[in-house]
Amino acid sequence: MEKNLIKNVREMVPLVHNITNYVTVNDVANILLACGGSPIMADDEAEAAEITSICGGLNINIGTLNARTVQSMLLAGKKANALGHITVLDPVGAGASKLRTETAAHLLDAVRFSVIRGNVSELKALWGSEAKTKGVDADIADRVTEENLDEMIRFAKQFSAKTGAVIAMTGAIDIVADAKRAYAIRNGNGLMSKITGTGCMLSGVVAAYCVANPKHLLDATAAAVAAMGLCGEIGFQRLQQTALSGTSSYRTYMIDAMSNLNDEKLEEGMKIEAR
Amino acid sequence: MEKNLIKNVREMVPLVHNITNYVTVNDVANILLACGGSPIMADDEAEAAEITSICGGLNINIGTLNARTVQSMLLAGKKANALGHITVLDPVGAGASKLRTETAAHLLDAVRFSVIRGNVSELKALWGSEAKTKGVDADIADRVTEENLDEMIRFAKQFSAKTGAVIAMTGAIDIVADAKRAYAIRNGNGLMSKITGTGCMLSGVVAAYCVANPKHLLDATAAAVAAMGLCGEIGFQRLQQTALSGTSSYRTYMIDAMSNLNDEKLEEGMKIEAR
Amino acid sequence: MEKNLIKNVREMVPLVHNITNYVTVNDVANILLACGGSPIMADDEAEAAEITSICGGLNINIGTLNARTVQSMLLAGKKANALGHITVLDPVGAGASKLRTETAAHLLDAVRFSVIRGNVSELKALWGSEAKTKGVDADIADRVTEENLDEMIRFAKQFSAKTGAVIAMTGAIDIVADAKRAYAIRNGNGLMSKITGTGCMLSGVVAAYCVANPKHLLDATAAAVAAMGLCGEIGFQRLQQTALSGTSSYRTYMIDAMSNLNDEKLEEGMKIEAR
Repeated sequence: MEKNLIKNVREMVPLVHNITNYVTVNDVANILLACGGSPIMADDEAEAAEITSICGGLNINIGTLNARTVQSMLLAGKKANALGHITVLDPVGAGASKLRTETAAHLLDAVRFSVIRGNVSELKALWGSEAKTKGVDADIADRVTEENLDEMIRFAKQFSAKTGAVIAMTGAIDIVADAKRAYAIRNGNGLMSKITGTGCMLSGVVAAYCVANPKHLLDATAAAVAAMGLCGEIGFQRLQQTALSGTSSYRTYMIDAMSNLNDEKLEEGMKIEAR
Repeated sequence: MEKNLIKNVREMVPLVHNITNYVTVNDVANILLACGGSPIMADDEAEAAEITSICGGLNINIGTLNARTVQSMLLAGKKANALGHITVLDPVGAGASKLRTETAAHLLDAVRFSVIRGNVSELKALWGSEAKTKGVDADIADRVTEENLDEMIRFAKQFSAKTGAVIAMTGAIDIVADAKRAYAIRNGNGLMSKITGTGCMLSGVVAAYCVANPKHLLDATAAAVAAMGLCGEIGFQRLQQTALSGTSSYRTYMIDAMSNLNDEKLEEGMKIEAR
Repeated sequence: MEKNLIKNVREMVPLVHNITNYVTVNDVANILLACGGSPIMADDEAEAAEITSICGGLNINIGTLNARTVQSMLLAGKKANALGHITVLDPVGAGASKLRTETAAHLLDAVRFSVIRGNVSELKALWGSEAKTKGVDADIADRVTEENLDEMIRFAKQFSAKTGAVIAMTGAIDIVADAKRAYAIRNGNGLMSKITGTGCMLSGVVAAYCVANPKHLLDATAAAVAAMGLCGEIGFQRLQQTALSGTSSYRTYMIDAMSNLNDEKLEEGMKIEAR
């Protein structure tokens, strides 16, 4: 694992353009600031490409998408590709509606992504939509377990080979893979699923980490995934010490932990295994 | 009052589709998770009905509405009716603009709602708009007091009889009524009005409670109203114990309390009276 | 400096219509409540002017603007002018895209603003766009320092003379000026820049303070700027006393401090200098 990944973020303060859902957008902005980056949100066709061009990275999240913002995602994605910028796709809800599955597939066709970050069912939906049109086997399990870990890593590597993107498949065990190498990450806490936006926030952090470490996308993505999980652990410990606290405090504690994180703490706390 | 209403929510984890305003949407998502449900937000015509169909309930909130989202509300509402799903209407700001009053009235015409949750002035505006077109008496007081409680309960029952929906009229004293029965609820704290979104959050919780308790809509709605008020009380007590804290901490404490709530605590803390 | 500015806000509870970005809208609503005002958000053409007409003030913030909301900003702005209401412009990201710079310039042409609140680069972009078309000197420094303070105050006064608006230029040192008088304000904490929305929140507070103190716009704006900075200081002190806390707690602590602020605390804590 590369060293100084977080230091590089805090020194560069990478500017990330986010076209993202209005549910968790405030948390995405605040965690981007907390992790050392800087957020800009802009979703109108008339400025999407221009805003992208002044940033170092683009984070596209399809939650609460609509016809207008999908157009902006395409314009911004193509501009980011033309400029060689980091691009992250978060296919929120792919599989839950035709609009989301097709939009994610369309984005994958039209834009080269540096990283795709989703849960198993979202990535399966994307794969399945590829699979349908291309005749590949789309028979993937529904979640990553110790038992199917090898198989899921193979799927992630294959997905990466197809798309050219680092794949971050997050769940109880996280997998981060490119076509050749993979990490299994066992940080995090089950309570994170009781907060909206932990996935969206992670995708923002992934973008910032990758912009500041462009030659190490696999490691930068893995570090971001481990960092988010570790913040979930640190936040949970703090929660246990605070009478009457619950899930809303937990959200605050996670973002707090991200704002205090550095490479030393991450190295000490991350539970990562090269596969 | 039915037993185990909250237990049923926590066991079922009801999925609720929210078409809601962007001001308080994050709080609605987080309190839905905190109360034991699961939120999905989707407001585009191209997916509104499809997302509704994979959920158990639909929560329509007209704050920050626009032509596009109103169309989605209608499509989702009709689909929810066709599938026999729980539907909640939160007519935010009805009475404040023609667009809101008319949209709420239009929704009432086109969609059968399981529950309508609003403050007195919003419900009066809806009633008045019915009244105008139907010649009924719309002369209702501006807020519920101990003095006019009987009269306001009569209004709520009448409103329920007209619409077929359980009516949740929230304020200093809350009234929850169907055509025949009513509850007066005296939980809550005045400081709740200094937080944006307590009403929106409550409507989300109402949806989750009703999806998990479909045969007891009146009791489920009353329990949700009492639960929100009780969380306001628990949060206020905690606030008193925390130096320098204020309204933003209060919001956190309320959602925290919801995440820790169970049937025992609710039964012990609720101040509810059958009328 | 006028007395009782905050008392006037808390007594009047001024209603402020906000057409603002979806990133920080929840914080804007909550800080408006915390400072003693009351927020309404509405951004559709079909109701923008009508909602404005029931309020005392209008706060236009161009972050995450789009063609639909720009139209609403114009309609609401003209209505507010016709009714003699307080109008605040927050030109978020002016200079970052042509759409934002031109929209801000267009708004300045079409609407008379009581106050314009932005950082140096946003105000420079607005000035530059005026400058380009009108041949004025647009050579302004990039940030306010003790060294260029006189020059920047001259710029703010000139900008005010051109626009008729009180200018609030915020940064490490804040300048609040009308055509003749100016204040330099040295409240605040550097960590405020690690929270999204401190500027947006301030613009909301400025609107509330001005609505409640319409004869003292310069002082009301200066008080709001100092109040926000002082809340940043109070929040930072509290942060130092809380183990494991970070930027998300800081956001909460700032809004908490605003909800507890009064004229006495502000007078004691504000670091303001008439220039």
